[in-house]
Amino acid sequence: MSDAMRTSVLGSTGAGDLFQLLRDGRPRTRAELAAVTGLARSTIGLRLDALTSLGLIGPVADAASTGGRPPSRIALKPSSRVVLAADLGASHAHVALADLMGGELASHTERLEISLGPEVVLGWMVEHADRLLAELGKSRADLIAAGIGLPGPVEFSTGRPVNPPIMPGWDAFDVPGWVHRHMPIPVYVDNDVNIMALGERTHSWPEVDHLFFLKVATGIGSGIISSGQLQRGAQGSAGDIGHIPVSRGAGIQCRCGNTGCLEAIASGPAIAASLRRQGRDVATGDDVVELVRRGDLDAVRAVRQAGRDIGEVLTTCVSLINPSVIALGGSMSEAGEHLLAGVREVVYSRSMPLATEHLQIVQSRAADDAAILGASMLAIHFALAPEALDALAAAASSSAQ
Amino acid sequence: MSDAMRTSVLGSTGAGDLFQLLRDGRPRTRAELAAVTGLARSTIGLRLDALTSLGLIGPVADAASTGGRPPSRIALKPSSRVVLAADLGASHAHVALADLMGGELASHTERLEISLGPEVVLGWMVEHADRLLAELGKSRADLIAAGIGLPGPVEFSTGRPVNPPIMPGWDAFDVPGWVHRHMPIPVYVDNDVNIMALGERTHSWPEVDHLFFLKVATGIGSGIISSGQLQRGAQGSAGDIGHIPVSRGAGIQCRCGNTGCLEAIASGPAIAASLRRQGRDVATGDDVVELVRRGDLDAVRAVRQAGRDIGEVLTTCVSLINPSVIALGGSMSEAGEHLLAGVREVVYSRSMPLATEHLQIVQSRAADDAAILGASMLAIHFALAPEALDALAAAASSSAQ
Repeated sequence: MSDAMRTSVLGSTGAGDLFQLLRDGRPRTRAELAAVTGLARSTIGLRLDALTSLGLIGPVADAASTGGRPPSRIALKPSSRVVLAADLGASHAHVALADLMGGELASHTERLEISLGPEVVLGWMVEHADRLLAELGKSRADLIAAGIGLPGPVEFSTGRPVNPPIMPGWDAFDVPGWVHRHMPIPVYVDNDVNIMALGERTHSWPEVDHLFFLKVATGIGSGIISSGQLQRGAQGSAGDIGHIPVSRGAGIQCRCGNTGCLEAIASGPAIAASLRRQGRDVATGDDVVELVRRGDLDAVRAVRQAGRDIGEVLTTCVSLINPSVIALGGSMSEAGEHLLAGVREVVYSRSMPLATEHLQIVQSRAADDAAILGASMLAIHFALAPEALDALAAAASSSAQ
Repeated sequence: MSDAMRTSVLGSTGAGDLFQLLRDGRPRTRAELAAVTGLARSTIGLRLDALTSLGLIGPVADAASTGGRPPSRIALKPSSRVVLAADLGASHAHVALADLMGGELASHTERLEISLGPEVVLGWMVEHADRLLAELGKSRADLIAAGIGLPGPVEFSTGRPVNPPIMPGWDAFDVPGWVHRHMPIPVYVDNDVNIMALGERTHSWPEVDHLFFLKVATGIGSGIISSGQLQRGAQGSAGDIGHIPVSRGAGIQCRCGNTGCLEAIASGPAIAASLRRQGRDVATGDDVVELVRRGDLDAVRAVRQAGRDIGEVLTTCVSLINPSVIALGGSMSEAGEHLLAGVREVVYSRSMPLATEHLQIVQSRAADDAAILGASMLAIHFALAPEALDALAAAASSSAQ
């Protein structure tokens, strides 16, 4: 480890670290900041100046102050910049602007096929980001970063999709590079389930350090938060559980080329196919959800069985990862308690007591908001990280010269 | 998050953080430390004084210095304190002393049954720790922390075993409390596979952030390092994969009460039992390893099949965690390439290409040293953490008054 890296561990090089103290929005005096950090007063002054010139912090009028003394406390200005968040699904697109604490300021969503390709879909995103900025009376200069979720595997370090099965034209496409040519901001790209996990945690489980988010829709995937951190694994494919073989899948062909994959028997299309084999008129997972809502027994049984198949894989997840919360999201989770019941039946009967003693298996609470909120948090996490702010401060000071 | 907690993130309150810079053993001047940390010179001076009075750091004679100028650089003194490491297995016990960089200074190992109970086994450990200290001309005052590995589930936050199947008398026993009454040092307890994962990484894969360590012996378990951090999960049971059901196990009774568990068909005793059913005279896993070494075909076949069964579970681990290295350890891994071949056969054929493209599946390189080295690293990790050193410095300064 170089001294430069160690420095960022120590957290004492730049303005970015000082800013971490202020991210909760609570105002603090310079004296408090000096006492807490042990930094020299002169250092504190320089760093606060850098953050102030970026517009990220500012003085707060002191209620207890009497007379004409200047305000003495400094706080984060959550609305000083905005982040762009985008949830680009298989057949929908959702774009939003959020403040620096993740609060949504403006949002637009419509049906859009990801298969139209990256230039059309990202072009749509940029166009609507501009419209939302205009609505808020803001411009591209107010943007500090973008977070984007895509419905397929993404190499997180480069932001490029990797062999995404339902995204023709997107394989290895340089998403950050393309966006950056239109909007000169840092762009972070991840798969949809990872950002849903981030959103679910921010929305409902901020104190939970071990959260497993499962998405059941056209595909099946998961986002894993362990030790409070989203785990992407060595190649960014952690949580990619749709192609794990399950016992009931023997011989059933999956679109991945293997047979017996979880996705081939428990995804929305797979459940619909099983009902069609019973002579029922169902085309999609949404049709299945609709049948379940109407109390159709065949559909209820098929969904519960899919829950059991998913439970078979989740049993292994529970042994391996030992989460305290498993949240089920995605369109098939709208089939309600039936999917959940199948999952619970298997996980609780097959797991070791220590791992399930305090385990909650629940429906996603963030639900439809999980992805867009997670995309905001992804952008904020990196945009407000110490190194990013240090770079921003350095760029601002060199352009001011 | 309180400001006190935030402070430790910022890393600027105490001597402990400054010390992190010096942990690599490289000497640095006060000016270098001030430049890198941004701390005031007076603050640097106070913190170095605290660390010097603890004996953890000291001046280094400057080779380039000419004349009578006092030495200007400061460095870690790795031998200033020692840690106690213990690997307490089902039927062996290994105790060692190591310096502050993990280097082994003295070691003793003998056959000892964990089933003798905590007071006998821990008493043995304390007795031999004292002997090793005496051998080195040191005393209990030189000990800074202890790291202990046990062959069963441990609640890491309390150091208490939780329903350990092969450890009668140990359930919920307060291991740190008992040791602390004899040796007033911080005591960290974890299960054996977790410390083996730490040891394997320290020994051979320091740059690998996603390492999966699998132990195959009397039982089967794993230790998971993701994002460079050992993952224990919500209750400390992460990696406990011995009781995951596998397809070939249907109907086979496991000691856990369930049927079809991985451990019931692929552990050392399970492989021995399968050979006995073929009329062979094998009592234990070690007998199986011995047969394999002699080239016995039945034994080779049985071990390879066990590898495939393990591979079935590892396929799921690969999808979930996306490690870049899987290291196989434990006594059955001494059956060499045969176990590994079975594992590889299944994992490479059943996993998604992205997850296996750069995946190495290898035999443990630390081998018999993994556990004791990992126990040292466990103790060092916590004993030299900023908060621990701050507490130590505070205690020293109050006792000096």
